[in-house]
Amino acid sequence: MIVNMSTNATPDEIDHIIERIKECGFQAHVVQGAERTIIGAIGSSGRRSEIEALRAAPGVDEVIQISHPFKLVSRQLRQARTVVDVRGKKIGAGDVVVIAGPCSVESEAQLLETAHAVKASGASMLRGGAYKPRTSPYDFQGLGVEALRFLQKASSETGLPIVTEVMSEADVEIVEEYADMMQVGARNMQNFSLLRKLALVSKPVLLKRGPSATVKEWLLAAEYLLAGGNTNVVLCERGIKTFETATRNTLDLAAVALVKELSHLPVLADPSHGTGMRSLITPMSKAAVAAGADGLLIEVHPCPERALSDGPQSLDLQGFQELMESLGQAPAREAKAA
Amino acid sequence: MIVNMSTNATPDEIDHIIERIKECGFQAHVVQGAERTIIGAIGSSGRRSEIEALRAAPGVDEVIQISHPFKLVSRQLRQARTVVDVRGKKIGAGDVVVIAGPCSVESEAQLLETAHAVKASGASMLRGGAYKPRTSPYDFQGLGVEALRFLQKASSETGLPIVTEVMSEADVEIVEEYADMMQVGARNMQNFSLLRKLALVSKPVLLKRGPSATVKEWLLAAEYLLAGGNTNVVLCERGIKTFETATRNTLDLAAVALVKELSHLPVLADPSHGTGMRSLITPMSKAAVAAGADGLLIEVHPCPERALSDGPQSLDLQGFQELMESLGQAPAREAKAA
Amino acid sequence: MIVNMSTNATPDEIDHIIERIKECGFQAHVVQGAERTIIGAIGSSGRRSEIEALRAAPGVDEVIQISHPFKLVSRQLRQARTVVDVRGKKIGAGDVVVIAGPCSVESEAQLLETAHAVKASGASMLRGGAYKPRTSPYDFQGLGVEALRFLQKASSETGLPIVTEVMSEADVEIVEEYADMMQVGARNMQNFSLLRKLALVSKPVLLKRGPSATVKEWLLAAEYLLAGGNTNVVLCERGIKTFETATRNTLDLAAVALVKELSHLPVLADPSHGTGMRSLITPMSKAAVAAGADGLLIEVHPCPERALSDGPQSLDLQGFQELMESLGQAPAREAKAA
Amino acid sequence: MIVNMSTNATPDEIDHIIERIKECGFQAHVVQGAERTIIGAIGSSGRRSEIEALRAAPGVDEVIQISHPFKLVSRQLRQARTVVDVRGKKIGAGDVVVIAGPCSVESEAQLLETAHAVKASGASMLRGGAYKPRTSPYDFQGLGVEALRFLQKASSETGLPIVTEVMSEADVEIVEEYADMMQVGARNMQNFSLLRKLALVSKPVLLKRGPSATVKEWLLAAEYLLAGGNTNVVLCERGIKTFETATRNTLDLAAVALVKELSHLPVLADPSHGTGMRSLITPMSKAAVAAGADGLLIEVHPCPERALSDGPQSLDLQGFQELMESLGQAPAREAKAA
Repeated sequence: MIVNMSTNATPDEIDHIIERIKECGFQAHVVQGAERTIIGAIGSSGRRSEIEALRAAPGVDEVIQISHPFKLVSRQLRQARTVVDVRGKKIGAGDVVVIAGPCSVESEAQLLETAHAVKASGASMLRGGAYKPRTSPYDFQGLGVEALRFLQKASSETGLPIVTEVMSEADVEIVEEYADMMQVGARNMQNFSLLRKLALVSKPVLLKRGPSATVKEWLLAAEYLLAGGNTNVVLCERGIKTFETATRNTLDLAAVALVKELSHLPVLADPSHGTGMRSLITPMSKAAVAAGADGLLIEVHPCPERALSDGPQSLDLQGFQELMESLGQAPAREAKAA
Repeated sequence: MIVNMSTNATPDEIDHIIERIKECGFQAHVVQGAERTIIGAIGSSGRRSEIEALRAAPGVDEVIQISHPFKLVSRQLRQARTVVDVRGKKIGAGDVVVIAGPCSVESEAQLLETAHAVKASGASMLRGGAYKPRTSPYDFQGLGVEALRFLQKASSETGLPIVTEVMSEADVEIVEEYADMMQVGARNMQNFSLLRKLALVSKPVLLKRGPSATVKEWLLAAEYLLAGGNTNVVLCERGIKTFETATRNTLDLAAVALVKELSHLPVLADPSHGTGMRSLITPMSKAAVAAGADGLLIEVHPCPERALSDGPQSLDLQGFQELMESLGQAPAREAKAA
Repeated sequence: MIVNMSTNATPDEIDHIIERIKECGFQAHVVQGAERTIIGAIGSSGRRSEIEALRAAPGVDEVIQISHPFKLVSRQLRQARTVVDVRGKKIGAGDVVVIAGPCSVESEAQLLETAHAVKASGASMLRGGAYKPRTSPYDFQGLGVEALRFLQKASSETGLPIVTEVMSEADVEIVEEYADMMQVGARNMQNFSLLRKLALVSKPVLLKRGPSATVKEWLLAAEYLLAGGNTNVVLCERGIKTFETATRNTLDLAAVALVKELSHLPVLADPSHGTGMRSLITPMSKAAVAAGADGLLIEVHPCPERALSDGPQSLDLQGFQELMESLGQAPAREAKAA
Repeated sequence: MIVNMSTNATPDEIDHIIERIKECGFQAHVVQGAERTIIGAIGSSGRRSEIEALRAAPGVDEVIQISHPFKLVSRQLRQARTVVDVRGKKIGAGDVVVIAGPCSVESEAQLLETAHAVKASGASMLRGGAYKPRTSPYDFQGLGVEALRFLQKASSETGLPIVTEVMSEADVEIVEEYADMMQVGARNMQNFSLLRKLALVSKPVLLKRGPSATVKEWLLAAEYLLAGGNTNVVLCERGIKTFETATRNTLDLAAVALVKELSHLPVLADPSHGTGMRSLITPMSKAAVAAGADGLLIEVHPCPERALSDGPQSLDLQGFQELMESLGQAPAREAKAA
């Protein structure tokens, strides 16, 4: 770390910083510039956060972090890519993994119809919300445990592993029982209490990027999971909030490519939430795969206009079949007939 | 609500929408324009979210909400301003309420020194974090229950009511026991499971605006609390994320003024988080009060450069005294001496 | 357009709006809802901007635009896709058009070396800045007319058409003389005086999206060109400003797909500016093509670390060759040898 | 400046950077850390932009600027605050300067009525647009020279100095002839050709912040004016683009306070554009003054609902009188009568 002194810092202020750097377990290295002094804090075992606090000391302009603050998620630590195995489906192993299903589980019939259809079109896993985080308390909040049972049935009929969101620490156990992968929704990305609980579960975790999270904050949220003991973490870019209102969010595909550079964890993209527009799902799915995404999360509903949530960004069954064909992911006709 | 048909919608598509609007419990009112047809869904008892889903129906361009989606927080429902009483201190009653204290409770000594000092300078309540939401798992995470006990002691010595954050559903009971007002942090604004639990507590709730929450989303988060039964809600603007990096966040004071227009709930401003820079706390405190804020949340630490969190945006004790003087909130010298 | 009256609008206020709508050349269509009245302004020949101003009238909550405000750029007006012919190279005709070259023209040697190399690697056109918009007045501002002459020489040696930016109305004539396509930079997207002049030139215009322009604002900027008489307009997405700082901008590829839906104009993507990171150019180039971009704008420099501008987001000659290969755009080895 | 080498930089790569730093006219100062090497470029006379380009060199992670890139606008260079004299009215001298008038000059009658009214209410200067930058080419574009003549007449009748926008380099001379202060609109903040021309005029320049400009970019735009010879520059914060749509822009008052810290130039705030809502003009005007703004820019129209532009964010004459009273800026009744 580097402490950048202000141009009118006094010698006493500079000495004070040098002393504090040493107190915090680092060596201090002073560089005397033309306009100002900068002081490096050198070493790997000091207390970094105390150096950061020096920004509050007199005569200090800025404290600049030189190293990335994340460790376990970093490719510096681990070159080999992590492959997450979700009941036999491998995420990050090279094939594009498509996870499809309704935003909300609304009924057994709706879910089973969707599950069989997405399976026939080539999906690798089934998604469906049992617990729904909704902006308004007056909107449909999910069927809860009943939905988990429908998901289990759909999974046993189709063989597709299940991904579903856990919103509450209180639901971690029950969701762990039913889900093959447990999703942390975007709005909970920095719900650290929930992350700490999920660090201890036996199932992989799908960690969505928060709508205003930087890549650094996202990776640090994943770091909570790894540091707590759960190394089966899959990231998912689902769009960030920007000034643009024509799309629901701005799908940040460069973040997908950048995370692949910085981290060994696999990364998915969610073009349904990322755009909020059904017509943009196919082009953005192709783009995500081209950018290096390990898979896709796609909302599919038998009748989007009757969906209890997210209809406008859901494909219908035919639309999903066409998407899979355009991605080259649909099974050959013969295979389907067989 | 208004369903805006696309310019090439067919008569069948239009008829379908009319029928669906009726099914959802509304009257359909068709307006035939020069270029396109728009259809109003009229009535107050229909199922609104099903109308929204019609954006997914063929021939539909957009579904436009006409009414505000929030009810109980709205001034349309309740003209009189809510005054929240926090153990005798009234927020929203006209006086500026200043809540001051350290970001994190670090030790009994640090807290007591701060509490006595901010009391002497005229603060109305004491803040201090026991459970800390930190971006990195390697940063100081708070002293937990021990900190709650220190807060209680500081409160009993100074008479200042206590505000502290509750991060986890699992901690709601213990925090309720110690705190006079329970804070929902910005990153948990849409942690709906936590909100639902806090709707049932006996203490007032301080709801911070999320760093990427629109005013509408913020008020709907408050609606969760009111709809669940807790009407003692205080809002707090603490800055939003924007492209500007010179300040930690962008303090949106227009949101303070706008919320006062839309809602009967009191609103505070937090210039410490809002700017991240100690030198901006005083001008932005004055600006917040001028914009109509009912009070301020200010981070104060006896030695900011040794703070375990947020030092650069904390005032020291002398700085806080000067702030209170510049706000005209410091007690007269005589009063202090007495 | 729809005028949304407030819930407590008086009958007089409603009558006043009806009257004003008629004065502005529309029919007024009143829809009486449960909570409020909305009034449609129907017709195609009224004065729309005067209806918008009614938001300022007493009793009015909002004025909602129903139709898109752009006309000539819209696919509603013109279904067939525009193909822009830049001295024989066709943009929007189906093939991916790659425009490559240095950010700034720095010398004859630098430009000629780059031009021959990008030609050999399969580029369709040459880009290079003669006039440079620089954030700081102390940075290199471009070689001006001298650079235009170097570009002309490079073009005559390689046969590649030339794209270069025009920053100033005063330079329109000289740039028109040398360039095959004239670029409007992102910071000038809403320099309407410049757009009005470029509406009258004989050359195609490349219109970059402003860093904070919505898709709607961008298309309306293009509308200035078409309305003024220049129909040869190529759009270019180059990233928008968001809170994310890990990349220089956020490349909004959904905007590329959306513009293809809304407009008949061709659209390029610029992953150099869009990301600011050399390592992200290749994945984002592939993603842009997959999202439907008609071509790419790529910064290439023989020695990026000595570039006078934008080195970190420039490929070197070898890197560009590899990009073209990975896009399947590099000429076959035999062809090159021939 | 500091060059931050990557953790796996080779000794050759490090040596190369040291050599390049020396070539660019700096001394190289190497700091060997635990994980990586950082190299300071020390000196005041080297070529900084060439050091920045080293981010493109092999083995380099980042190049970090330590000093602020602006000079002439900086308080480091000039401690004394600049006072800009606009025909006798002093901006930055301590008194709040209120500049009021219509968004667009629409007619002689409209302007004269407004001018006399705002003068009577205590305004110090008159604003009014003759050339209007409009998002759509189909909106009212201003009366041009005719409007300048009306402004001149209004000024001679009321004694109020005139502020009006210049959009085009071609209009600089004519606007200079009529205006007392020449405004650069937000969308032209980085129209560097225009800035270079305005650096040479005899009149003060009012430089609005671009809707996506950082404080640093804004000050560097001002640096263009000062470096070119015009030291009479007044800055104006007018709101930035964010995800929030409830207000037209987000008025960034912390930027006002921060600019006062960084620069000696005076700063105004424009709550009309900053919020887009008439009801927010008064609270945000008070807040701006409390934050340290040297004055305000307020849109006023005799009949906002008939305004050809920006009606919803304009006060009517009575509303402006009330604003001035609430700011304590209205002349005493006696004085008005006299």
